Amino acid sequence: MAEDLARAAKKAKTNKDQLMHYVVENANYFVKKLGEIVAIDGVSAEPQRRPKLRQTAEWLKAHLETLGGNVKFAELGQQQIGGGVSIPLPPVVMAEFHSHPDKPTLCVYGHYDVQPASKSDGWDTEPFEMTDKDGKLYGRGTTDDKGPILAWMWAIRAFKDLNMDLPVNIKLMLEGMEESGSIGLEKLVETEASRHGGFLTDVDFICISDNYWIGDKKPCVTYGLRGNVYFFIHVKGCSMDLHSGVHGGAVHEPMTDVIHLLSRLISPSHEITIPGLAEMVEPLTADELERAGDMDFDVERYKNDVGLVGQRQLLHDQRENILMHRWRYPCLSIHGIQHAFAGEGTKTVIPGKVTGKFSIRIVPNMDPQRVGQVVCEYVRREFATLNSPNELVVEVSKAGMWWKSDTSNVNHLAAQQAQKDVYGVEPDLTREGGSIPITLTFQNATGKNVVLLPLGACDDGAHSQNEKINRSNYINGVKVMICYLMNLGTV
Amino acid sequence: MAEDLARAAKKAKTNKDQLMHYVVENANYFVKKLGEIVAIDGVSAEPQRRPKLRQTAEWLKAHLETLGGNVKFAELGQQQIGGGVSIPLPPVVMAEFHSHPDKPTLCVYGHYDVQPASKSDGWDTEPFEMTDKDGKLYGRGTTDDKGPILAWMWAIRAFKDLNMDLPVNIKLMLEGMEESGSIGLEKLVETEASRHGGFLTDVDFICISDNYWIGDKKPCVTYGLRGNVYFFIHVKGCSMDLHSGVHGGAVHEPMTDVIHLLSRLISPSHEITIPGLAEMVEPLTADELERAGDMDFDVERYKNDVGLVGQRQLLHDQRENILMHRWRYPCLSIHGIQHAFAGEGTKTVIPGKVTGKFSIRIVPNMDPQRVGQVVCEYVRREFATLNSPNELVVEVSKAGMWWKSDTSNVNHLAAQQAQKDVYGVEPDLTREGGSIPITLTFQNATGKNVVLLPLGACDDGAHSQNEKINRSNYINGVKVMICYLMNLGTV
Ligand SMILES: [Zn+2]
Ligand SMILES: [Zn+2]
Ligand SMILES: [Zn+2]
Ligand SMILES: [Zn+2]
Repeated sequence: MAEDLARAAKKAKTNKDQLMHYVVENANYFVKKLGEIVAIDGVSAEPQRRPKLRQTAEWLKAHLETLGGNVKFAELGQQQIGGGVSIPLPPVVMAEFHSHPDKPTLCVYGHYDVQPASKSDGWDTEPFEMTDKDGKLYGRGTTDDKGPILAWMWAIRAFKDLNMDLPVNIKLMLEGMEESGSIGLEKLVETEASRHGGFLTDVDFICISDNYWIGDKKPCVTYGLRGNVYFFIHVKGCSMDLHSGVHGGAVHEPMTDVIHLLSRLISPSHEITIPGLAEMVEPLTADELERAGDMDFDVERYKNDVGLVGQRQLLHDQRENILMHRWRYPCLSIHGIQHAFAGEGTKTVIPGKVTGKFSIRIVPNMDPQRVGQVVCEYVRREFATLNSPNELVVEVSKAGMWWKSDTSNVNHLAAQQAQKDVYGVEPDLTREGGSIPITLTFQNATGKNVVLLPLGACDDGAHSQNEKINRSNYINGVKVMICYLMNLGTV
Repeated sequence: MAEDLARAAKKAKTNKDQLMHYVVENANYFVKKLGEIVAIDGVSAEPQRRPKLRQTAEWLKAHLETLGGNVKFAELGQQQIGGGVSIPLPPVVMAEFHSHPDKPTLCVYGHYDVQPASKSDGWDTEPFEMTDKDGKLYGRGTTDDKGPILAWMWAIRAFKDLNMDLPVNIKLMLEGMEESGSIGLEKLVETEASRHGGFLTDVDFICISDNYWIGDKKPCVTYGLRGNVYFFIHVKGCSMDLHSGVHGGAVHEPMTDVIHLLSRLISPSHEITIPGLAEMVEPLTADELERAGDMDFDVERYKNDVGLVGQRQLLHDQRENILMHRWRYPCLSIHGIQHAFAGEGTKTVIPGKVTGKFSIRIVPNMDPQRVGQVVCEYVRREFATLNSPNELVVEVSKAGMWWKSDTSNVNHLAAQQAQKDVYGVEPDLTREGGSIPITLTFQNATGKNVVLLPLGACDDGAHSQNEKINRSNYINGVKVMICYLMNLGTV
């Protein structure tokens, strides 16, 4: 029995060595193929490029079938873009690689649409012609999210070409609308997870590779995201805009109310001044803080990335405090004011009605509904103290839940170990400040664990000019995914 | 000698009776002609209608020459409208009616361009086809400012047709760009007032008929206008806009600073909270307040006009307090915020830099420069208390002086008496809350007294749908102008 185990471990090691070797051997091919898919410029935000998205989906289908996948398109129908015009939605590519009924099933999500880009936006190279320079692969979609999608494909290809069984069954769901609101995806996921014989009914684990390391040296595995509750404060005074010369001094201006209300949401030093929210936040542990202090996060580089110059421009100085305030604590941002004068130059207008907009990023254990209620009640109470004759309507426009997973779940352990297998260091266990709504959609629809497994580095510039993925991150990414599949297979 | 005076007075009375009779006799012709000029739809804001403005100017020139005027066009050249495109500016029509070198010279200002209008904006009739209905003359420009311009012409015509000498020399300056910033006019006025033999060098009085009664029963003569100082508060944080999910909680947001600064300019009950301004205001006299209490100003109608519903929607209840706060006291309006999110829906942005915009209406004896300085210093002081790492720039974007004339100046007395001659009541002596910059331009360039002599009623809707002038206001307006000229002639 001990011998059997030893033999199995040895075989796994040999297999793994062979697989790793295969990746290195085929690296140039992987890079060439990334260039090929980058060149198909499917941008979901640009209606005229919808055919390119379908072409990307066809490219994926052909390649996935070559790898032995059973590929289907889930068609999502038409999208109304206003003025009675509708355009076709790109299909969701659903590919199944069946290994054995006794093995667990992994669902992989990715997206093949990209952000808009043109050289005139300030790119140094053509965004849709991949450029391999100084160990970096430049091009729109290289890191978000075509590189990671292809890394999954090459991981599968490695097992196939080496005549090894896949350690788990794999189901890929690749959408073409992520950068434009993932229209139709939530419904599809819910349907496929619930209908008899649905694509997702037998899924055991979910993995999404669509975020980034927090540095450029150490890999990460991500287990948390903040949610967001977005508020509108509408104040209505007169039924029309008035001239501030003719009427200023006579009317109670809605703008005055909105400015005062907004000023009561947050202190000048950026503390949220709405009572009842701080109590909802899960207390920070000493351990969390200590781990954050050790992470591969460069404060100076971060300041540089957000375009801050000079001294004390961030709200917090220490690495761990910055990270905790980006991931672990709620924050409130005032986004702007609608229906007031927002143009160039001067306009002497008293807006008749205005809408102040702000949102609160929420974290465990804040309940979005409760946050919405507490904030709306607070705004109404404060408005009452203004003694304004104007009409107030305060509403929650959107409420998105936070997500937090268990870092000791087998799915997470498999991902963490995979990063360590490849990079030789313990990965940083990170959270993110923003939302990736699809994470919760998959978790809620399937009831299964989700892990976020980033491949790219912090400076990849996913939505910016000169987006890139480091060649090493891409190639190592294939290795990470192979190891992750192997680790999952031993669960 | 006493006999001579008596004879002169009698002659004046007979003349006046004849002139008044003439106006009544020719009323239909005056109305017909107003319809004719309304039909030439010259809108200064619409480049494609520039030829119509020139056509209006030609129409005026032809008619003024028929009345014996010496008419010239002052050409103002081209207007740059962006994209390297330029369009011709409409000419200023300068017409001289010389009576006698010993008589005083009156300068009359008016404008022949109108606001944009189309039936689809909600007009009940075609805006550029005058409709005579229920004693009202509907059409764009009927009251602003074609009606008043024509009233001047018919006043001159009356003297001519009755073979009477004009009581004063008259110089008309009629521009075609008033509704679009009076481009080029200030320079022209300054030149004509200063150059040797300039059109305005020998002017003794100035009269402008381009505002309205404050009610619909009693005529007014206007002697004051508020000025305006317009401020920009620029706060710059990051060199780019940031995603509020990814970075919220880490950066000190410029929007937070601007909201706090704006909230410190004005109390919820609309008192200006900037120290040092109230002291600059000329104290209100009991007499002023009492006169305001007697004016033809209907509070309920006013509330209705500004689209207020229900109770206590105005800042003040009493007629006199409302009027005083519109004319006599400074006020502060927050107009909006630039560079933040001002669109529909939700956007999770942290604007990297924002500009808050507000302006203060100023009154005697506030010095615009001093107001600018006091306010900028206050904003800087308040910003210092915010302890913000962001950059603040506060600037005065525009500073326009208030205007106040002496109601006992002979020019004003002549105008007041003219209203009384025609309507049989003492006119209300009013001010306005807004600015009419041309008033100060004429006063400063010539050093002479200006009076504002409104013909139309408060409900004429100058810039709104269904603009009209009451037929009676228009025809009586001709009489008022005749009486004004006669009164000026006896100075
Ligand atoms: Zn992505
Ligand atoms: Zn993206
Ligand atoms: Zn006007
Ligand atoms: Zn006007």
